[in-house]
Amino acid sequence: MAKMRQILIIGNNDNGCTPELEKTAYDAGKHVAESNSVLITGGLGGVMKAASHGAKDGGGLTIGIIPQDDASLANEFCDIVIPSGMGLSRDFLNALSADGVIVVGGGSGTLSEICAAYMYKKPIATIKNSGGMATKYADQYLDHRENVKIIGFDSPKDAVDYILEQTKS
Amino acid sequence: MAKMRQILIIGNNDNGCTPELEKTAYDAGKHVAESNSVLITGGLGGVMKAASHGAKDGGGLTIGIIPQDDASLANEFCDIVIPSGMGLSRDFLNALSADGVIVVGGGSGTLSEICAAYMYKKPIATIKNSGGMATKYADQYLDHRENVKIIGFDSPKDAVDYILEQTKS
Amino acid sequence: MAKMRQILIIGNNDNGCTPELEKTAYDAGKHVAESNSVLITGGLGGVMKAASHGAKDGGGLTIGIIPQDDASLANEFCDIVIPSGMGLSRDFLNALSADGVIVVGGGSGTLSEICAAYMYKKPIATIKNSGGMATKYADQYLDHRENVKIIGFDSPKDAVDYILEQTKS
Amino acid sequence: MAKMRQILIIGNNDNGCTPELEKTAYDAGKHVAESNSVLITGGLGGVMKAASHGAKDGGGLTIGIIPQDDASLANEFCDIVIPSGMGLSRDFLNALSADGVIVVGGGSGTLSEICAAYMYKKPIATIKNSGGMATKYADQYLDHRENVKIIGFDSPKDAVDYILEQTKS
Repeated sequence: MAKMRQILIIGNNDNGCTPELEKTAYDAGKHVAESNSVLITGGLGGVMKAASHGAKDGGGLTIGIIPQDDASLANEFCDIVIPSGMGLSRDFLNALSADGVIVVGGGSGTLSEICAAYMYKKPIATIKNSGGMATKYADQYLDHRENVKIIGFDSPKDAVDYILEQTKS
Repeated sequence: MAKMRQILIIGNNDNGCTPELEKTAYDAGKHVAESNSVLITGGLGGVMKAASHGAKDGGGLTIGIIPQDDASLANEFCDIVIPSGMGLSRDFLNALSADGVIVVGGGSGTLSEICAAYMYKKPIATIKNSGGMATKYADQYLDHRENVKIIGFDSPKDAVDYILEQTKS
Repeated sequence: MAKMRQILIIGNNDNGCTPELEKTAYDAGKHVAESNSVLITGGLGGVMKAASHGAKDGGGLTIGIIPQDDASLANEFCDIVIPSGMGLSRDFLNALSADGVIVVGGGSGTLSEICAAYMYKKPIATIKNSGGMATKYADQYLDHRENVKIIGFDSPKDAVDYILEQTKS
Repeated sequence: MAKMRQILIIGNNDNGCTPELEKTAYDAGKHVAESNSVLITGGLGGVMKAASHGAKDGGGLTIGIIPQDDASLANEFCDIVIPSGMGLSRDFLNALSADGVIVVGGGSGTLSEICAAYMYKKPIATIKNSGGMATKYADQYLDHRENVKIIGFDSPKDAVDYILEQTKS
């Protein structure tokens, strides 16, 4: 099948983001692009924007799936925008659209996406020292079902390599 | 407005449920009914079914919002079924439909509903010794935004009373 | 199973509604309530509001499934509000929640709900002289699949009786 | 903004499709690709598959937004798959994701997408002699609001040119 590998990067929106998190997300996005995978994000600010920026600088393709029904609200680094109009439940759409997931920092919205990805048994990697949910859930199962272990990595490159390994055709 | 108070009880589906959790959920459902509030659940088994059973025995009205598009898959204690056809993202619909939320045990699906309720700033109470997410998140904020504090209680009655207090018109 | 019969009434919002359409919707809502069925509407104005008003005056229970995530935006005759936050795609949720559907007038939103109900093979009745989609699609199949024939009736009572007949347990 | 133009082609799934419709859809998809726009479809068979095939042969990028939560169910000509898990309500997601819409034949599902596109005021073109909804709704408004006129064209090229004209940045 023609389908490209689709990798989701999740994490803080502008609220709660820092220059370090942006750098981490940028690097992760760039590595995704360099692997010829499509980068998917929630299309807004913070980690989502930085990752998309990195993917564009890496020559890749970016998709932003946003909560609103207005595509102009997506960040400027999205080649394609899905204005879901679903509000925050678009977190599930992000998880479903992902072959694998990378977590950078993150608050409750990110946790919601982790839950969805976990329930759908997608491989999940976190940058374990990036704080927030990425740190909190590194190297754990989310619950008793042990669907998939969330693995923590020290660097964006290692996290991306792990996801590429897990999503080889 | 004619609108009734709508209280959501969340927790384990059949997988991971125990007789103790069912008893706790049953009691919580009964108290919800006795307060003349509508009970909302995810309409399937485990905690959802026990809570609905308790609400019916308490003379109340029950709504089940299920992931599938087939109403016959809801448990037998639902007066009204919303067969959302949305899959697991119906967790958001549950949270949006709730004036307040009570957590009994729970795994990743329950955590997803807690995230949604927290993001929408709904009051949330847990039975703090019921295990799973109810124990894990008792007396905490979900993230740095501190939207709403998730409060742990020893008994279903105390948890319901707290939610009733928080949702007084 | 305890589940009540759930009947959906659809039609014009405030835009495009008339006193005649409101009277027709009011009467339909009242008959639904008198049959001990739950009335479901899209929870906003026009036909939805009038039908809910009629159902309340008929002693029945009403549910409004609205596009927004804010329950206060529902009309005042809804006992229960599902603030879907899904925008206009909540038309599908309405159709899925219905055992049967009654159409009063209606524009593009109503047509969308007719499409959804038809695709899910729900029985559909229209008040055939109420204009809009109710008139346009009376006594027709929506497409070549011939899932279910949309039947036109002269009065709200006849339309409701037909739906009750089609949805007998 | 980096965002590409996103054009949606809708019409019959396998059920109801014909070789003529496939040829028309293939040509439309090819023209979309040749304009450097992204082709969006509902990702399944019939018109959706033929349009995606034409876009791939035209060197373009294709996205399939499918009702199921399993990406393997998309047709083989989709570069990117959004497995929405939303069932048929993904028709709204298609319409929201479109800058403009082209209709080839089509039954009730297509009509649902036309309703959604019309409600969101997207430009809509049909191949007016391709039958189904494309013929039925050519050169009309969907309802009294007159949001946008659905324009009928004789050829796929004319329809695509019209949409390109309507969606110039």
